[in-house]
Amino acid sequence: MELRYPNGKKYKGKKNKAGRKNANQILYGNRGMTLEEDLNETNAYYLQEGIAVIHKKPTPIQIVQVDYQSRSTAVIKEAYFKQPSTTDYNGVMNGKYIDFEAKETQNHTSFPLHNFHEHQISHMKQVVAQGGICFVILRFAKEEEIFLLESRHLFFYWDRMLAGGRKSIKKEEIEENGHPIPVGYRPRIDYIAVLKQLYAL
Amino acid sequence: MELRYPNGKKYKGKKNKAGRKNANQILYGNRGMTLEEDLNETNAYYLQEGIAVIHKKPTPIQIVQVDYQSRSTAVIKEAYFKQPSTTDYNGVMNGKYIDFEAKETQNHTSFPLHNFHEHQISHMKQVVAQGGICFVILRFAKEEEIFLLESRHLFFYWDRMLAGGRKSIKKEEIEENGHPIPVGYRPRIDYIAVLKQLYAL
Repeated sequence: MELRYPNGKKYKGKKNKAGRKNANQILYGNRGMTLEEDLNETNAYYLQEGIAVIHKKPTPIQIVQVDYQSRSTAVIKEAYFKQPSTTDYNGVMNGKYIDFEAKETQNHTSFPLHNFHEHQISHMKQVVAQGGICFVILRFAKEEEIFLLESRHLFFYWDRMLAGGRKSIKKEEIEENGHPIPVGYRPRIDYIAVLKQLYAL
Repeated sequence: MELRYPNGKKYKGKKNKAGRKNANQILYGNRGMTLEEDLNETNAYYLQEGIAVIHKKPTPIQIVQVDYQSRSTAVIKEAYFKQPSTTDYNGVMNGKYIDFEAKETQNHTSFPLHNFHEHQISHMKQVVAQGGICFVILRFAKEEEIFLLESRHLFFYWDRMLAGGRKSIKKEEIEENGHPIPVGYRPRIDYIAVLKQLYAL
């Protein structure tokens, strides 16, 4: 959501008594925004600025019953959520294919791997095999800390779990192998800035 | 749908009296397969063979009411189809971003442009601006003729329509600027073969 004055001018945040901008404090203290909402706005910003074309895929649904009440109106009366077979986000930047999943946890010290499905890991491996850029965005909700972790690291922790190891990634491991993404205003979660450092984009 | 004998061996088609394989005649004469089904199988083949990772996006749905009957079962009781804001298919081959829409017509001599939405054309233009590979697959259902048309040509015909011109693409125009895709067995609609000729893939 972009704040604007009634005349259409963009809201840039007010100075407080100390003369310091506090727009971020207002916008980010207890905003209650989900990671998905933040990423949707980030992607809308990238699109608008011509930086990248990244979209969230629709939630996959199994439709069972549809009522065609008129020629133009179809109402879905019974449907079920399906487990996604791919990641949620993909798109293009400078011709390169970009693919990622985003998850958040209320935990403080580790990121549970049950946030991911076997199908998604398989998909990410297929993308990497085709030379795509693939990663996950992990958010520690309580601390409002966000990391980009390249998928090869996720595969390592996933395989460690399958081999009988821990069912989560330690936060120290994410700090060591991942890349922090500072939370900003526009864009909110500038993961492209991290990708530019990691890849020739 | 892949045909198999009860023992699991793949059905390759029988020889007819003239000793010629007629599997294609059996499989493709009046199969009643939709373009979407054919493309899903084509993409499954590409995925299985490690050629490309291309998926159809789920149909976008606006969910209005969900019943949580138990902890694990959520039933969607009211939802509506939304107009897609992007194309239906995208993915990656050799690191390159691939994006397309597929449509079919019962017409014989032209392809109506109302098969596409303004949003989809905008999306395709954004993809092209980011260096993605973007095209449409057009099927003349009655003749079982399929063409790949690069998006820049579609933009030309779209803009011609907006400027007051015809609301369809003549079949001769598609034949001249597009690329025929022969219908085969595995894969059914080998659009990657066309892309390999057009781009350094």
